[in-house]
Amino acid sequence: MKLERVIQYAQTLLQMSVAEGDIAVDATAGNGHDTLFLANLVGDHGFVYAFDVQKEAVDATLHRLLDNALEHRAIVLRDGHENVAKYVNKTVSAAIFNLGYLPGSDHEVVTKPNTTIQSLESLLKLLKVGGMIVLVVYHGHEGGKEERDEVIRFVSNLPQKYIHVLRYEFINQKNDPPFIIALEKVKELPRDFENLF
Amino acid sequence: MKLERVIQYAQTLLQMSVAEGDIAVDATAGNGHDTLFLANLVGDHGFVYAFDVQKEAVDATLHRLLDNALEHRAIVLRDGHENVAKYVNKTVSAAIFNLGYLPGSDHEVVTKPNTTIQSLESLLKLLKVGGMIVLVVYHGHEGGKEERDEVIRFVSNLPQKYIHVLRYEFINQKNDPPFIIALEKVKELPRDFENLF
Repeated sequence: MKLERVIQYAQTLLQMSVAEGDIAVDATAGNGHDTLFLANLVGDHGFVYAFDVQKEAVDATLHRLLDNALEHRAIVLRDGHENVAKYVNKTVSAAIFNLGYLPGSDHEVVTKPNTTIQSLESLLKLLKVGGMIVLVVYHGHEGGKEERDEVIRFVSNLPQKYIHVLRYEFINQKNDPPFIIALEKVKELPRDFENLF
Repeated sequence: MKLERVIQYAQTLLQMSVAEGDIAVDATAGNGHDTLFLANLVGDHGFVYAFDVQKEAVDATLHRLLDNALEHRAIVLRDGHENVAKYVNKTVSAAIFNLGYLPGSDHEVVTKPNTTIQSLESLLKLLKVGGMIVLVVYHGHEGGKEERDEVIRFVSNLPQKYIHVLRYEFINQKNDPPFIIALEKVKELPRDFENLF
């Protein structure tokens, strides 16, 4: 197949954006697949900050890093991604979000629009020019459509001079498959950027 | 910039889909840019069928081919793309549409939803497995939104088992910029495919 599926395309975007020595953020560590993927990309001189509010996700991510002997390349924080600026004060090359719930969990803990948007605001400031934020938007669960719509409203209003916002979606699939929103910073934000929201 | 702009991405998709010796279709020859692009991809053993209902478009496309000494690789037909099956009876690797009007013309002649969809139906049958149809959807002109919506309704209902339908769109840009719909055939269509529409 020539058209990359959603998960593949998310990884391609991260690969394009992260080089050895870079800082990357996994905003929703979940089962740790993306944290491990980023840990491989940043190399021994880079670093990954992974966030999750659920203990089982933090544990799964830590185990995945340990199993691959890459635990020194990442810190897994049990905190919400809206607090990213408390931990990260370096320029970030890429961040990834999986919006929705932890696969395999009870589906009661889900990402929420207000904290997702807070986190995006912080990450847009931390992001380097040429850096990328990738959102994999799952929206089939309860509250998923509301989050999807609020996030789309937010990103659709980001000024195109500074940030390109791409939606990449297969539109003939059943059962609310995930789609991608990719934000690329193309110009440094002005100091009063918050006023643009 | 890492995220390919719409025109770039359309060309990337064609490049992925067309090899030397292949047959390709430019469904809306317009000023001939895509016909020339395809003529370069198919090589001396392939061939391009280009369609346009406007004389000025046919002339511009022929001139562009002549200027590049590639006129032997293409035929430029002054006919509607809904008649593609009258001229093409070989397996097609890729086709491209620019929906809207001829740039620089009087904007009165525009592509129409019913003929666009007829052409898509014919091309989906002619397309090889792994082949791609790329639509660059301009929708800022009068009637553009109706065509956009009808085409999206049609492609959204194509069965995902046979055709993957991707929408690639920058969603924070002003002035109705074009977006892409890409159709990849992933499995040969059944004989009664028309009944699936």
